[in-house]
Amino acid sequence: MLSDRALAALREVVPGDRVLTAREDLLTYAADATPLMGRPPSAVVVPRDAEEVSEVVRLANEEGFAIVPRGAGTGLSGGAVPASEDAVVLLFHGWNEIAEIDLGNHMAWVEPGVITADLHRAVEDHDLFYPPDPGSMRVCTIGGNVAENAGGLRGLKYGVTKDYVQGLEVVLPTGEFVRMGGKAVKDAAGYDLKDLMVGSEGTLGIFTRVLVRLVARPASTRTILATFRTLGAAGEAVAAILAARIVPSMLELLDRTTILAVERYARLGLPQDLAALLLIETDGHPVVASDEARAVSRLCKAHGAREVRHAATAREAEDLRTARRAAFSALARIGPTTILEDATVPRSAVPAMLERIHEIAARHGVVFGIFGHAGDGNLHPTCVLDAREPDEVARAEAAFEEVFAAAIALGGTITGEHGVGLAKRRFLELQVGDPALRFMREVKRVMDPNQVLNPGKVFAPRPRCEHPPIGHPRLAGATA
Amino acid sequence: MLSDRALAALREVVPGDRVLTAREDLLTYAADATPLMGRPPSAVVVPRDAEEVSEVVRLANEEGFAIVPRGAGTGLSGGAVPASEDAVVLLFHGWNEIAEIDLGNHMAWVEPGVITADLHRAVEDHDLFYPPDPGSMRVCTIGGNVAENAGGLRGLKYGVTKDYVQGLEVVLPTGEFVRMGGKAVKDAAGYDLKDLMVGSEGTLGIFTRVLVRLVARPASTRTILATFRTLGAAGEAVAAILAARIVPSMLELLDRTTILAVERYARLGLPQDLAALLLIETDGHPVVASDEARAVSRLCKAHGAREVRHAATAREAEDLRTARRAAFSALARIGPTTILEDATVPRSAVPAMLERIHEIAARHGVVFGIFGHAGDGNLHPTCVLDAREPDEVARAEAAFEEVFAAAIALGGTITGEHGVGLAKRRFLELQVGDPALRFMREVKRVMDPNQVLNPGKVFAPRPRCEHPPIGHPRLAGATA
Repeated sequence: MLSDRALAALREVVPGDRVLTAREDLLTYAADATPLMGRPPSAVVVPRDAEEVSEVVRLANEEGFAIVPRGAGTGLSGGAVPASEDAVVLLFHGWNEIAEIDLGNHMAWVEPGVITADLHRAVEDHDLFYPPDPGSMRVCTIGGNVAENAGGLRGLKYGVTKDYVQGLEVVLPTGEFVRMGGKAVKDAAGYDLKDLMVGSEGTLGIFTRVLVRLVARPASTRTILATFRTLGAAGEAVAAILAARIVPSMLELLDRTTILAVERYARLGLPQDLAALLLIETDGHPVVASDEARAVSRLCKAHGAREVRHAATAREAEDLRTARRAAFSALARIGPTTILEDATVPRSAVPAMLERIHEIAARHGVVFGIFGHAGDGNLHPTCVLDAREPDEVARAEAAFEEVFAAAIALGGTITGEHGVGLAKRRFLELQVGDPALRFMREVKRVMDPNQVLNPGKVFAPRPRCEHPPIGHPRLAGATA
Repeated sequence: MLSDRALAALREVVPGDRVLTAREDLLTYAADATPLMGRPPSAVVVPRDAEEVSEVVRLANEEGFAIVPRGAGTGLSGGAVPASEDAVVLLFHGWNEIAEIDLGNHMAWVEPGVITADLHRAVEDHDLFYPPDPGSMRVCTIGGNVAENAGGLRGLKYGVTKDYVQGLEVVLPTGEFVRMGGKAVKDAAGYDLKDLMVGSEGTLGIFTRVLVRLVARPASTRTILATFRTLGAAGEAVAAILAARIVPSMLELLDRTTILAVERYARLGLPQDLAALLLIETDGHPVVASDEARAVSRLCKAHGAREVRHAATAREAEDLRTARRAAFSALARIGPTTILEDATVPRSAVPAMLERIHEIAARHGVVFGIFGHAGDGNLHPTCVLDAREPDEVARAEAAFEEVFAAAIALGGTITGEHGVGLAKRRFLELQVGDPALRFMREVKRVMDPNQVLNPGKVFAPRPRCEHPPIGHPRLAGATA
């Protein structure tokens, strides 16, 4: 618990009822979108500017409490939930100003609480484009995207959040304020601290402003839906498209379980006997987008596609995209609890990984829907279960453990775009090995000697938060 | 000096005459392409495999000598030259195997001594493309490119080396061997050590293998030469092209001094009264490349271009590119010493920076040629002087100091693509500020507690190498 002295000091630094301690406020910020993770914080603080953030961080060092920065709380690895009972949540979702759109340099300075889709719309008005589009883009925030190095559906062609972070204003774990990067697009001066900050999950610094790089808005887009009778055929079509040196702006796969759930939810009129579906987009110059769309269509048919449908209108394309984006919500409706993961493999290993996941799910008797970004190997095996059944949770846990091991064995990673957070810290060493993990811990120790920023995330917890947070590792607790 | 014991131990670890100590060998590796920097090493070691590299590094920790990894020695910041008398140069230019071109994943594993242009050719045979193209690409090595985060002419559209490093095999300063990254294109697991390694200038690890990402080879290229009577008009044409959301694959600027030098060297038949020249390439789908080339041509004319010439043949295009790539060599012929820098600014600040450089050069009475990557703000102000004249060197130094300050004041950086090395370590704090510099130093200290890897680079030197290397900071010494 936070001491009375620390709480009083907090109220002094952040005045005017912006330190919340009512039970309902604490419960609100006990969880994010990750099931079975988290616990209520001691207080929730709504800072007004970087100066206040800095003072709160200094206070945390003096009084010895933990700080958990939080945007919209849509994270899927437990990165934004408290892991210790002294934790203070620092809320940024109100920091939603797009401070500058620099048309000369094709960049924008934004506050961390700006919603990703709002940034999309704002820059598209200027014929510019901010490509990262996480599944939760209509609610998630840029600050959270940077903290987790969020990806999205356009990753294959356009990369992930890190590829678009050009500069950061950061409050370090010491409370010091630092600007990193800037509007010069090439910069080889010293170690790249900015790139170390991106994906650091709130453990190395708190972002108070983000400079994002923008690109020219693609002049046109073609959207294609291809359906397959076997998952293997869909996988072969993906390989053939990439082998033809076509890089679609979207190349999404849905398996049978996910298709059924999406159909029940979105009523696209899909046949019920499909084994797999690919949602593909090409974009750019109208000639390129349509040339590539034709080639994609031909390759899908050549690999046994049952139907290849081209969206005739922008509205139809948007409906297809929306259905894909609804996959998680649709799966969430078929059981009380949904655990969505993002084990990722080299794209050539996607067919092998799909087989492995199905085999693992069958052996453990759990229901897995699989969807995800087939083009970049970033799959989302999603387990639907009832968290009130401890046995079911245990089987799901065992299955995921094997899924992570399989991804690593295939040359992949335990997380492509969600981060490690609380959910996967047990598996990090398995992937990166001892010297690399030690190096990461040393960086954390040197930067944050008092372990005030988001302790317990990414790495095994410091002693004072070793009592596990609620439900960790998902063996009991709340339901999503 | 290296102790006899250390030398004997080195010969044991690296047997078979692969430890060189003859005076001519030591002199050969005293300098790189940076004028007035460096000193002879104590020994030159030619390791055969990662195991030997690891053993040499462990020995350096035990015996307390410094290691300077070196590729082709084409660096322009003194990164590959000894900074202390105990230094041992570790030579990688013989490690030139392209171990794998993975057509399924569009990636290649290469040894650090592979020459950049050799990699270009090898992957183009498979219709793939490795975009980074530093000016020295016909001689420089991938290992050095990764160490300095090298850029090149295609940076505006395609980014820099970091954007293509997908994985690394590294010997850490402790001698431990680590793999970072891999073939999964999305990876959010833990801190991004790989991105910290890229651009670390040989101070955090020695790369023994590099996994690079490849992209689809552009189907066509258009090359355009536009000449201008004023530098200002050329700057406006650049701004207009970018404002039209056209991203050329090359957008190079040469000023009058550089044009005259290049003309004398390459005989392109350029008029002698030009103030500026733009060399522009568009690439991609034939329709896109030619649409964009037409638009570029129109915009250049609208902004006062005197002549716009489209290369009619691939040979003519190659001649133009070769002339641009020869700018450094051409300038080097007009005086005995050439100091080439890469102060970089946001691209909107290019016109202001060009004016500042000319004003600074005039005031200090030094000859500056300016050329560089106008599209991404990465300029190469190049001073031609006679290093045997101490007064001339001092004026050049004073002018460069102002150039760096001007770049920082315009929101830019002291180095866009050459690194800090020895040449710019005095200026790093001016750019990044105290907390960031302290953080970088702490990372170095934690990773390399005995300061064995390339000490004295990036940061002010450790005590035992504080006696300045030959000529530092360019106040006397050898001539390029």
